[in-house]
Amino acid sequence: MKIEIITIGDEILIGQIVDTNSAWMGVELNKLGWDVVAITTVGDVHDDIIKAFDVALQRADIVLVTGGTGPTKDDITKNILCEYFDSKLIFNQSILDNVEAIFANRAIKINELTKTQAWVPDKAVVLMNRVGTAPCLWFEKDGKVLVSMAGVPSEMKWLMSNEILPKLEKTFNDGSAVEHRTLLVKDYSESALAEKLSDFEANLPKCFKLAYLPQQGIVRLRLTGRNHDKNVLIENTDKYAAQLKSILGKAIYSDVDLPLEKLVGLRLKQLKITMATAESCTGGTIAKMITSVPGSSEYFMGGIVSYSNLVKESVLNVDKKDIETFGAVSETVVRQMAKGAIKVCSADCSVATSGIAGPDGGTKDKPVGTVWICAQYKEKQIARLYNFGTIREYNTVKASNCALQLLLEILE
Amino acid sequence: MKIEIITIGDEILIGQIVDTNSAWMGVELNKLGWDVVAITTVGDVHDDIIKAFDVALQRADIVLVTGGTGPTKDDITKNILCEYFDSKLIFNQSILDNVEAIFANRAIKINELTKTQAWVPDKAVVLMNRVGTAPCLWFEKDGKVLVSMAGVPSEMKWLMSNEILPKLEKTFNDGSAVEHRTLLVKDYSESALAEKLSDFEANLPKCFKLAYLPQQGIVRLRLTGRNHDKNVLIENTDKYAAQLKSILGKAIYSDVDLPLEKLVGLRLKQLKITMATAESCTGGTIAKMITSVPGSSEYFMGGIVSYSNLVKESVLNVDKKDIETFGAVSETVVRQMAKGAIKVCSADCSVATSGIAGPDGGTKDKPVGTVWICAQYKEKQIARLYNFGTIREYNTVKASNCALQLLLEILE
Repeated sequence: MKIEIITIGDEILIGQIVDTNSAWMGVELNKLGWDVVAITTVGDVHDDIIKAFDVALQRADIVLVTGGTGPTKDDITKNILCEYFDSKLIFNQSILDNVEAIFANRAIKINELTKTQAWVPDKAVVLMNRVGTAPCLWFEKDGKVLVSMAGVPSEMKWLMSNEILPKLEKTFNDGSAVEHRTLLVKDYSESALAEKLSDFEANLPKCFKLAYLPQQGIVRLRLTGRNHDKNVLIENTDKYAAQLKSILGKAIYSDVDLPLEKLVGLRLKQLKITMATAESCTGGTIAKMITSVPGSSEYFMGGIVSYSNLVKESVLNVDKKDIETFGAVSETVVRQMAKGAIKVCSADCSVATSGIAGPDGGTKDKPVGTVWICAQYKEKQIARLYNFGTIREYNTVKASNCALQLLLEILE
Repeated sequence: MKIEIITIGDEILIGQIVDTNSAWMGVELNKLGWDVVAITTVGDVHDDIIKAFDVALQRADIVLVTGGTGPTKDDITKNILCEYFDSKLIFNQSILDNVEAIFANRAIKINELTKTQAWVPDKAVVLMNRVGTAPCLWFEKDGKVLVSMAGVPSEMKWLMSNEILPKLEKTFNDGSAVEHRTLLVKDYSESALAEKLSDFEANLPKCFKLAYLPQQGIVRLRLTGRNHDKNVLIENTDKYAAQLKSILGKAIYSDVDLPLEKLVGLRLKQLKITMATAESCTGGTIAKMITSVPGSSEYFMGGIVSYSNLVKESVLNVDKKDIETFGAVSETVVRQMAKGAIKVCSADCSVATSGIAGPDGGTKDKPVGTVWICAQYKEKQIARLYNFGTIREYNTVKASNCALQLLLEILE
């Protein structure tokens, strides 16, 4: 089933708001085995909206429209829907009752403008919006469906989960199922990985697709299969996922599609141990990632951002002479940083980074992008040298990801 | 000038990635006085991409295409561009040189697949991508322009800033001048600010526009004027900016549109002093912000992420009894954290945060979103209590921004 999402709103076009609705809808629709073939964002402009409807109803079977459904002047979607589906507005008492119930619940007095939400196109099936005032409108034309809903994320999610998705499934499900397996791969560039997997891909049947989703220091490898027989599908998807695992071996650091900070958190909870960080070139990025996870205080003791050598020495107890002899970006210093973090934070394991983030500060033997990373668990340490690019932001994120991958490795 | 953004990538359609590129591009294009009229996302599917090109070149003068430019099988944009613009692939030595330079810098061996990036459509003007392997391709057709670029945000931003926007301005500028004045405002919500400025806005002439760009703890107020007479324009823009300053007074913490971490860095360099951080609820976010600025090692000594009370005590020398008596989220503790950071990092000034980020951990007198922040310069301290919302990510970012605003205040 082909689906297009149309988002209506100037605020997205000028970049004031990032469209997160479409991503959420894409995930939910995918679970039903349906493909979003296009996402289109247009402003509150009559002709652009009409054109978007035309194009969408050509290439998709189902068109989901969000936004422009408020009662104010700049929300013109409802009138355009009337025009497009040759409808006239009629009064709907049950919508007014619902709106009044919502306002009563919020102890706000309902105003006249809001009451106009009860006037809806006569050709539309009304899906009741229990969490907002904008009614959800379902239109059918030549066997295709267009649904208009509020753009407020909480209202959109409620309507999709409780009204739209169930009705769509009842109307359209052709019984085909879809399966995803996502493998998280380290130590490969996208192209190197593609080269490594070229034979595997060549032998993959048409009903399976392999997608490469590169992030800094990570390639998320997504295998997607489609079949009418769910059991056969699961069996085959597992088979090909197993083949990928045997080809890539230890380069796969997870077959659960979670961000590194969550994978590390789960592993630490599993082992009932705590962690600390000692960051130089990553400047607090690793601590920020770890603490972005709710409940991380359970296992994250703390971190030292030892940006200056003075802090490396005074807080992490790195040997001043070693810094002078080998430089701050060196194996011996990063090892002492990891050790110092464990000691000063009373943690069971730690990860430390020291490198040249750039854009300046590189030398001939230590160019920009040179990063030493050390992970320690109890007495055991792994220190590794990395060579990244010239972009500061890229280097700090990549170094942080590689550091957490190294920590997962030592906690295996 | 009408612009359409086309984003190519299955990962956006299935919701695995949120499209943040378009929002960033929308903001940058808006600064040039150009409107994004539509954003379209399609998958790596031949017919859908062709259709998107057709529709976009109908309704827009400039079409900016991101994504699908990798060397792997699922990246088909380049071949489609060849077909669409009736081109054939030719080898471009300077691209190969650039790619080899990038790989040499990363000390990675270049593989055959990546070398194919040097084959480009003969009808395209090549804009060199200095930060990635995918060349940027500029096509012209019937007075309209289509530009294809990498979808990796860091590469897209570099290409837009250094190659595409300058060339677009040279090609399309209609001679009308655009002036911007951006004022950075604290302590106001967007709606409260709009209320405060309603009279000012009512008296603003049509050729001026006032945009509210809210971020966590910040409202960026952008005044934009357009006129063919550059001198008159500058004079009037300065006049209205001055009016805004007199209305908002100290709530404006900068009239230079720079991120807080850069404003703080500039101020520290101006005063020739150093800083340190002591972070609890912000978990390293402030240190990460400060160190994201190239050259920050000049003034940033380091930071302590004292997530556990143990680290607050052992590293920052916070009194154990005070933590027991007043709690970790308290004025006395945050003041001691700020003091401890200065001492342990030998810095001139510091900022400290302690709060309940959420979603859990709130109590009746200290609900989620309660944050104490203290800024210290030499012996002087300012400690302030903030009450934010219930969303963890929002709270950490807002607390970090307010912390740096407080630091700027004490360094005035």
